[in-house]
Amino acid sequence: MGLDGVTGATEEQVRRDDRAHVFHSWSAQGLIDPLPIADALGSYFTDYSGKRYLDFSSQLVNVNIGYQHPKLVAAIQEQAGRLTTISPAFANDARSEAARLITELAPGDLTKVFFTNGGAEASENALRMARLHTGRHKVMAAYRSYHGATAGAIAMTGDPRRWASEPGMPGIVRYWGPYPYRSAFHAETEQEEGVRALQHLRDLVMVEGPATIAAIILETVVGTNGVLVPPPGYLQGVRDLCDEFGIVMIADEVMAGFGRCGEWFAVDHWGVAPDLITFAKGVNSGYVPLGGVIISERIAATFDQRPFPGGLTYSGHPLACASAVASINIFKEEGIVEHARDLGEDVIGPGLRDLADRHPSVGEVRGLGVFWALELVRDRHTREPLVPFNAAGADAAPMNDFAAACKQRGLWPFIHFNRTHVVPPCTTSADEVREGLAILDEALDVADGFYTGADA
Amino acid sequence: MGLDGVTGATEEQVRRDDRAHVFHSWSAQGLIDPLPIADALGSYFTDYSGKRYLDFSSQLVNVNIGYQHPKLVAAIQEQAGRLTTISPAFANDARSEAARLITELAPGDLTKVFFTNGGAEASENALRMARLHTGRHKVMAAYRSYHGATAGAIAMTGDPRRWASEPGMPGIVRYWGPYPYRSAFHAETEQEEGVRALQHLRDLVMVEGPATIAAIILETVVGTNGVLVPPPGYLQGVRDLCDEFGIVMIADEVMAGFGRCGEWFAVDHWGVAPDLITFAKGVNSGYVPLGGVIISERIAATFDQRPFPGGLTYSGHPLACASAVASINIFKEEGIVEHARDLGEDVIGPGLRDLADRHPSVGEVRGLGVFWALELVRDRHTREPLVPFNAAGADAAPMNDFAAACKQRGLWPFIHFNRTHVVPPCTTSADEVREGLAILDEALDVADGFYTGADA
Repeated sequence: MGLDGVTGATEEQVRRDDRAHVFHSWSAQGLIDPLPIADALGSYFTDYSGKRYLDFSSQLVNVNIGYQHPKLVAAIQEQAGRLTTISPAFANDARSEAARLITELAPGDLTKVFFTNGGAEASENALRMARLHTGRHKVMAAYRSYHGATAGAIAMTGDPRRWASEPGMPGIVRYWGPYPYRSAFHAETEQEEGVRALQHLRDLVMVEGPATIAAIILETVVGTNGVLVPPPGYLQGVRDLCDEFGIVMIADEVMAGFGRCGEWFAVDHWGVAPDLITFAKGVNSGYVPLGGVIISERIAATFDQRPFPGGLTYSGHPLACASAVASINIFKEEGIVEHARDLGEDVIGPGLRDLADRHPSVGEVRGLGVFWALELVRDRHTREPLVPFNAAGADAAPMNDFAAACKQRGLWPFIHFNRTHVVPPCTTSADEVREGLAILDEALDVADGFYTGADA
Repeated sequence: MGLDGVTGATEEQVRRDDRAHVFHSWSAQGLIDPLPIADALGSYFTDYSGKRYLDFSSQLVNVNIGYQHPKLVAAIQEQAGRLTTISPAFANDARSEAARLITELAPGDLTKVFFTNGGAEASENALRMARLHTGRHKVMAAYRSYHGATAGAIAMTGDPRRWASEPGMPGIVRYWGPYPYRSAFHAETEQEEGVRALQHLRDLVMVEGPATIAAIILETVVGTNGVLVPPPGYLQGVRDLCDEFGIVMIADEVMAGFGRCGEWFAVDHWGVAPDLITFAKGVNSGYVPLGGVIISERIAATFDQRPFPGGLTYSGHPLACASAVASINIFKEEGIVEHARDLGEDVIGPGLRDLADRHPSVGEVRGLGVFWALELVRDRHTREPLVPFNAAGADAAPMNDFAAACKQRGLWPFIHFNRTHVVPPCTTSADEVREGLAILDEALDVADGFYTGADA
């Protein structure tokens, strides 16, 4: 490309211009030194020194198909040559086909798609649809959740990323979701946790007033806040509660969908159909920004004669939609969803449980598909986390040391609070997973060094 | 591409899947019949019957470089083959270079860029920066404005698209901006309008409490709500007011920037440097979803030691950033900004004024660059608009008839309320503009048919 392309910059130029001109997400700009990445392929990315990292993070849990999948790249290149952009007011083959494929995979009567650029806008528009469909204002949203960083999405978010944006949009009622390892309900079994979490939700609906509640939003499997897999019966219980009181059930599958849980949609694991599903990330592995809301017939019908009061310039962007079409077709051709499921059952799950047997700092292993968490603790009996909730600076040192040990050995981990998540691309091979598990085995020695339990 | 591509669908398939599965922006889904578009090149797009439309809308005023610019397409294809995506936590050559080029063009000390997927997220994050930088909560936002459809952006929006999303985020104080043709201040000249609009803004700041106001946000040239070009001195007056009271000045240039006004940034036309500029659309003509906030040194420094509490998975997306790099380089190589300026001064402005001379329904012509509006009226003396504010259904018939007359003749117009905007790609040739003006000339006969003024 010569003049117009960006090829040819040195690491020094990339770093200098980054530090001078790029303002980074969720960061103190003066305290970071972002690593320049030169290249990526499959399950690995490479820095300018040629050091290769096996990616156990899928970046931000989005590169489900792996890096630079040749067929997906070719499809993007082909669509770029055909038609990159056309406004939402028109029909377009890529947009139609992406919507058809996505709704064909979706559960229940979720037959329409409103496309956005990412997950936050999907949350915003699901909220808008639920409020206007019900004529109610309140939304029930979980602690330990993330739904995006725009004003509506961050107000629904239940983790500390919300704090600096408060006071925010009114109308949020917060609830505790199931989390057997750290139960808000003093439950002693997973079964009991599910039952008590449902009772808590029902009690809140009662005291808030069912007729004031537009929606209950949840991450089908809570992502960044812990890979919290719902106990059997929980999602169906939420579904029943929503049906009983005419509340819209919104499943946020931005992270959990499109293969991450070894299913097309995470709800498929429990056979539950929500009214709205939000998606992004895995739909096209973020090769082109894309997200959306999949909508039930009943909610879509609310906007048949009455305009839907939301939109965006790039809704149904042809280049983005073409990449979703290609990605879904590749997933089918290559059996990627099944591979992710098998990887979880046969390799990741057993491998992590094996690590837990040998490392006292591993308090719990949980997950499914290619969506796993190790909860690191100072004491298995008290379950005191290896670092405090929302730790920063020196408080976070044990996890930073653990992460450094991984990176030094060529593994890029996903770290949140006292947890490391094992969230590689869905296309990672069993051997690559074993390579990563071997590195985790060494790095967990670092975490064990902070263990203070009696069984240390 | 065969299996993975979307090529080969018939018009009937595209339309059928669109109607069955695509939920469209800002629409009553049962009342629309979106036209399937097969192809686009330069200033034209083509439907499946082979009918070609000269685009006087640039889609949603975003295709500034025209459709399928071969160099821009090639740059996207090249970057797709190199690296489509990497998380915001890393440095990347496309991201660094896009930020360097954008800040090099930006006025004042706006030296850092926070990248988003589009304009709404840019508004959201500019708001977040202003609030945290000042420690204040209120934002002053104009009637007759549009800043996006996420909860924060729609709350700042001053047009009817906001209504259905209320009550929304608190803390918005609304003001009237200058609009000489329909003055809120009973001004009789453009000069007087500017002075009175500033006095109004100052009075509001006084009664709201200067120490409570984080930001004043404005579209440098108001876009969809009328191509309202600020009177000389107005923007400098806002700048001075912000300086006097420590208020952040946010210029929304999502529509007005990157050549639309015949300048890189619309503020360049008046030599005013805001504290934050939001952009999207023209930065890469929407070939890949991209937007962002350009940030002053002083505001960026607020987040040097303290984390910026906002982010998104695709911030600084390599494929999107590479397309911005290529687009900016092409703009420079081909003199596109200068061409847009000349087109406005030499062809569009004179051409529209000529139409106004011959069509009584044209109440006012205003604009600059490739950013123009014709205000259509029933009476030039009363200035009664051709259709009422926010007209729908039968009330909107005169504008619908006018639009249909344009489309029938192969011109795709931009219509909002009682106005048609003349907003072709910046790369449109003088001859193409003349072709479009000739069609407008015929279609305005339709508008003249609704004229009821004494001079009819």
